[in-house]
Amino acid sequence: MTAGTSKDAVKAALTTQALETPSWAYGNSGTRFKVFAQPGVPRTTREKIDDASRVHAHTGVAPRVALHIPWDKVDDYAALAEYATERGVTLGAINANVFQDDDYKLGSVTNPDPTVRRKALDHLLECVDIMDATGSRDLKLWFSDGTNYPGQDDIRSRQDRLSQALHTTYERLGDDQRMLIEYKLFEPAFYATDIPDWGTAYAHCLKLGPKAQVVVDTGHHAPGTNIEFIVATLLREGRLGAFDFNSRFYADDDLMAGAADPFQLFRIMYEVVRGGGLTSDIAFMLDQCHNIEAKIPAIIRSVMNVQEATAKALLVDADALAEAQRTGDVLAANAVLMDAFNTDVRPLLAEVREDSGLDPDPMRAYQQSGWQEQIVKERVGGEQAGWGA
Amino acid sequence: MTAGTSKDAVKAALTTQALETPSWAYGNSGTRFKVFAQPGVPRTTREKIDDASRVHAHTGVAPRVALHIPWDKVDDYAALAEYATERGVTLGAINANVFQDDDYKLGSVTNPDPTVRRKALDHLLECVDIMDATGSRDLKLWFSDGTNYPGQDDIRSRQDRLSQALHTTYERLGDDQRMLIEYKLFEPAFYATDIPDWGTAYAHCLKLGPKAQVVVDTGHHAPGTNIEFIVATLLREGRLGAFDFNSRFYADDDLMAGAADPFQLFRIMYEVVRGGGLTSDIAFMLDQCHNIEAKIPAIIRSVMNVQEATAKALLVDADALAEAQRTGDVLAANAVLMDAFNTDVRPLLAEVREDSGLDPDPMRAYQQSGWQEQIVKERVGGEQAGWGA
Amino acid sequence: MTAGTSKDAVKAALTTQALETPSWAYGNSGTRFKVFAQPGVPRTTREKIDDASRVHAHTGVAPRVALHIPWDKVDDYAALAEYATERGVTLGAINANVFQDDDYKLGSVTNPDPTVRRKALDHLLECVDIMDATGSRDLKLWFSDGTNYPGQDDIRSRQDRLSQALHTTYERLGDDQRMLIEYKLFEPAFYATDIPDWGTAYAHCLKLGPKAQVVVDTGHHAPGTNIEFIVATLLREGRLGAFDFNSRFYADDDLMAGAADPFQLFRIMYEVVRGGGLTSDIAFMLDQCHNIEAKIPAIIRSVMNVQEATAKALLVDADALAEAQRTGDVLAANAVLMDAFNTDVRPLLAEVREDSGLDPDPMRAYQQSGWQEQIVKERVGGEQAGWGA
Amino acid sequence: MTAGTSKDAVKAALTTQALETPSWAYGNSGTRFKVFAQPGVPRTTREKIDDASRVHAHTGVAPRVALHIPWDKVDDYAALAEYATERGVTLGAINANVFQDDDYKLGSVTNPDPTVRRKALDHLLECVDIMDATGSRDLKLWFSDGTNYPGQDDIRSRQDRLSQALHTTYERLGDDQRMLIEYKLFEPAFYATDIPDWGTAYAHCLKLGPKAQVVVDTGHHAPGTNIEFIVATLLREGRLGAFDFNSRFYADDDLMAGAADPFQLFRIMYEVVRGGGLTSDIAFMLDQCHNIEAKIPAIIRSVMNVQEATAKALLVDADALAEAQRTGDVLAANAVLMDAFNTDVRPLLAEVREDSGLDPDPMRAYQQSGWQEQIVKERVGGEQAGWGA
Repeated sequence: MTAGTSKDAVKAALTTQALETPSWAYGNSGTRFKVFAQPGVPRTTREKIDDASRVHAHTGVAPRVALHIPWDKVDDYAALAEYATERGVTLGAINANVFQDDDYKLGSVTNPDPTVRRKALDHLLECVDIMDATGSRDLKLWFSDGTNYPGQDDIRSRQDRLSQALHTTYERLGDDQRMLIEYKLFEPAFYATDIPDWGTAYAHCLKLGPKAQVVVDTGHHAPGTNIEFIVATLLREGRLGAFDFNSRFYADDDLMAGAADPFQLFRIMYEVVRGGGLTSDIAFMLDQCHNIEAKIPAIIRSVMNVQEATAKALLVDADALAEAQRTGDVLAANAVLMDAFNTDVRPLLAEVREDSGLDPDPMRAYQQSGWQEQIVKERVGGEQAGWGA
Repeated sequence: MTAGTSKDAVKAALTTQALETPSWAYGNSGTRFKVFAQPGVPRTTREKIDDASRVHAHTGVAPRVALHIPWDKVDDYAALAEYATERGVTLGAINANVFQDDDYKLGSVTNPDPTVRRKALDHLLECVDIMDATGSRDLKLWFSDGTNYPGQDDIRSRQDRLSQALHTTYERLGDDQRMLIEYKLFEPAFYATDIPDWGTAYAHCLKLGPKAQVVVDTGHHAPGTNIEFIVATLLREGRLGAFDFNSRFYADDDLMAGAADPFQLFRIMYEVVRGGGLTSDIAFMLDQCHNIEAKIPAIIRSVMNVQEATAKALLVDADALAEAQRTGDVLAANAVLMDAFNTDVRPLLAEVREDSGLDPDPMRAYQQSGWQEQIVKERVGGEQAGWGA
Repeated sequence: MTAGTSKDAVKAALTTQALETPSWAYGNSGTRFKVFAQPGVPRTTREKIDDASRVHAHTGVAPRVALHIPWDKVDDYAALAEYATERGVTLGAINANVFQDDDYKLGSVTNPDPTVRRKALDHLLECVDIMDATGSRDLKLWFSDGTNYPGQDDIRSRQDRLSQALHTTYERLGDDQRMLIEYKLFEPAFYATDIPDWGTAYAHCLKLGPKAQVVVDTGHHAPGTNIEFIVATLLREGRLGAFDFNSRFYADDDLMAGAADPFQLFRIMYEVVRGGGLTSDIAFMLDQCHNIEAKIPAIIRSVMNVQEATAKALLVDADALAEAQRTGDVLAANAVLMDAFNTDVRPLLAEVREDSGLDPDPMRAYQQSGWQEQIVKERVGGEQAGWGA
Repeated sequence: MTAGTSKDAVKAALTTQALETPSWAYGNSGTRFKVFAQPGVPRTTREKIDDASRVHAHTGVAPRVALHIPWDKVDDYAALAEYATERGVTLGAINANVFQDDDYKLGSVTNPDPTVRRKALDHLLECVDIMDATGSRDLKLWFSDGTNYPGQDDIRSRQDRLSQALHTTYERLGDDQRMLIEYKLFEPAFYATDIPDWGTAYAHCLKLGPKAQVVVDTGHHAPGTNIEFIVATLLREGRLGAFDFNSRFYADDDLMAGAADPFQLFRIMYEVVRGGGLTSDIAFMLDQCHNIEAKIPAIIRSVMNVQEATAKALLVDADALAEAQRTGDVLAANAVLMDAFNTDVRPLLAEVREDSGLDPDPMRAYQQSGWQEQIVKERVGGEQAGWGA
């Protein structure tokens, strides 16, 4: 917060925040050891949208829902978009899925077999068709492609194949559509992932053009990686397209954003604010797995955690910070940042909500809304949504 | 190899090596993203034993098969043991499974709910009953128990509950039976695993008694952990009960033993040899997931990798090493170790196999045996075994 | 905070907190690349004590100073202790240094050369002599001992030698004296450290007796290690003797406590509170390197960070937490913990200080005290203290 | 080795290999805890060159010596180059040092203070002057620049300052000169290093032009990073300028290349061979610290380790590998790679040396040469070279 930044300005910034929740987070998820099903989990994409609309209704800052194809395949996407609008939310990014068919055992767009590559590419292009229908701006691409054993495939040829698929898909994008390229260190590939780090995603984006942007999933880095540095760097390069928020203690744990290291989330949001990212085209998405906790409240909590981190980031006294940095006063500069982090922003956020006519406590409001009881009662029979659905 | 160790002694040591393969590695496995089924995968425990017997037939050093309960539940364990014997192998450790029932969402023996704890304990005791029937010596205990979020449960109370279950189970063991306690840093628990490291497993073993021993799974450590140090320490303490061999580049990747870091496997086997572990009661088990590679040959390769590492460890010139260590000659001491590692032991192992009447090349022999074609053709219909089976 | 825990009780607990600051943190430190000297750094142990007394004067919770031998070698330790008392502090743990003589290139108490081992042992015993003179309760033992290359020395023999030195030293301890054994994953040993983890330290303590306790240095673990789990476990075992607080993003960075991950520090202090550690014999020490920031204020800040984490830990609603844990309500239990963490405890701590007649803002008070200007002016000439001094 | 690759071709490739040893590795080095001086260590750059010439004389593949300025500052660089030539070696990369002056406490080219930035830039330009005099092709830039605490300085502004310094230096380069940009995850910066990863170095190189290339130091990555992937990627992008070889178990341990993970070194060299890097402009340099082992033989051993890894990489049957990869035979493809790795190439390398008139065993030849005894006797008095010299 610069000297000139009033509390009102902070509140205004917080009011306009818009997060995107992932349709699949409302469904069942788990680990390779076990997926624990939960009562009331949606069976259809419409039910997922119903749940997402509840998250937005209580938090006021989660107006978009990302889809995952084919998990969210429907016959009429325009009707789906209308359904969402009626429930107060809009459809967000289209997430392509090229990892769950048997054909993809050794890769999708990087598979040594050209037939499999073609199939995967067709799916990517189909996703752009869906974007046309839903009006979605973003095509989100995460590839599980990689190898488990040294020698299994040629690392370099896989980059060539990847590049080809990306280019063809990029050509298919409309003027207002973007391609978001996600990187991930490992899992499910256990030796070499084809897009393992931001550098690789960035290098491909450069060659593709301005509509290609990098996605930072906060759980996809090697231990010790300074994520906020990557955020600042990509913002400086104009290549930060989106976040997949979640948190982790170990690997890609996919815990609730801010749950494992709230200070890190604050530092990330500080770099976003500092780099002008809050008012940019960046898509702020969640990508989490609520394996053992109740899903809708877990998503509400995650949204609130991102919101709290944002509020703290906005409260940093930019002038005092700049002055301490300029004079090389290490402790004073650090203290300015920590002062904002140590502030309890919950009262401020309660105000923001009340100003918007919302209950100041979204968690309590959801619990009291009766929604959970209703879906547990009504969503009986059918097949619950899940990663494999 | 001390001055007095002849090549014959090395060969003799290699001939008597006995590895244990896990029944579940013959079934389907995968990641949370996808399980790729393979043709010819066993549908029953007997078919798993058939496959294990093939591994032993070609390598000569894998005479035991570990079972996983309830995956390998049968009506008549004595009959199963006899079936195994007829196929040239014996039944090894009984692995308890207290992680795949819905009840275990928040833990098994450490669950806050006493009813769930009792159910889990009953399963452990049932496994000892099975050991009585199969004649198995070892009860292997791995608990997925832990928490995903700080505060979720009381870390200390969970240790108390764990201790109680272990004591009751320990009391149930027969004179010649052992309890093997496995530790794991994380997954599926993503905040605090109840037995995360060797220290915790060891502390419990000390309180239980001499029949409680630690299992070192080579994929279950934090990055940078020196596994051979743990092996040497547990051997010195008389508490190394077993290995679960596999390898990894990142987390618990469960790749083929020796595939990711053959030098590490060699160092581990060197400490085993140096600490007298090769002729001890240690159970040398594999615990791997062959997600994308053919399962039986992958297990044969893993067995061969452990065998090669053992051969190299046996070839270390113990006298030269001791002398270099005594005089503080860092480079010379390291060179003695590296000399053994850099030796190509494949000709030696070919000899060992031929001496035993085996084909010198187990991989080729398996490929030529026709077994793979046979099982692909015959094992049609039914339900393939897998982690969730 | 249980229902019955009043704010007064929390304040009382905070008032009685007693941290120990390390004499060496007031001197120069750095990395292998460069030690940046700072003006005003103490030249003598008495000057270090002067600085430590300033930290205590402003914070009220740092009444002890740890010494490092031979860095703090003086002729008359009783006089030194008196000097400290006159300045309002007392002498704390005696830290043995067996890593800076040329003899220790290949180890101290684990060196293959018995002459070097004897020299190192003599130093340990000398430290107990010093404890007798200073009245210190604790002998803190950190060994840099280890190997850089596989094969360099025999891992197991080194444990035998270590055990011998520890036993002889233990025998020398007086009735009210303790031995604190510190572990560290790596650095300066780059292959195998002789006490790399809590399990190894614990195993040695068990064999030595009740006066041997483990030190948890918060920067000495592998990436991903759950430190609060270790704290809870050692407390449960009655073997947590002390903390060396500091923080890190990567390796043993030795940054100010709480600077890198304040949530982790809070979780650690929560386990301390939960396990009764706050009112136990645990020595709460700092062990940090202020390479680029001003030293005395950095130590004040670190003390305040520990204090804030303690305050938050004390504020956890124990009853609500227990209830949520008992019923398996993951989100509610986590929320209870987070509620305490998200509380801004700075006003409460300002009150605690004012109640004790201190300035509510120790950082400002130190800046305004004129001490820094005074020492910069007066401490000219002589040799500044540093790690190698 | 493709079907068409004869043993002679492999030997020819090995004969033409040219490694560069670092002048500073012949001097004393250590950790922040202690630098253990060694007898016979050079006092001057000429003595370092003498030692480097011994390494080349015995191995035949280390014809270049890298210099470090100001450690290797001399009055007459042309004379120094001639001195080197007379001893059978040439001067290699010039390494700029902007981390050991007091001014650089908060950074060199990224320092918030423009005066310090100017000083650092002048040093970089001076290094190009030296290159002109020595005829060196490469300016190697490693910056210790970064911050220790969040907020300490503005991450993004530091990139701007860095960019400016790099551009000015780039403009100064002659037509045949290159700039090699090194990245490093951490140390001595403990929060955010200004060039922490290959992506950042690569992004700067792209903006600078074709003479800017990335240096891969094998010890400068986060745990779990797949280094050979980076190597393959940079080769594909035409931006791999050089290697700094060394090895590590934990952080930037700077152990002998190939000592910690020989399989990793092999995989790296395989990607070099596969990507045409062996016959490219890549500078193959060592950058190591021989803290406890004898320096010259340690460097000989390191050179031999790189050579052995190269030989194994050359032996990979490229045709068989391509065929197995094409057909998706995971195990067969991995086996082709492992077959080369498991080959004992020491006899082949002995032949290569004998063909060049060298002793087949460089370590023994050095021991028997009397050089070590000579330098220990002669290099008495003066000041031994070291990192701080």
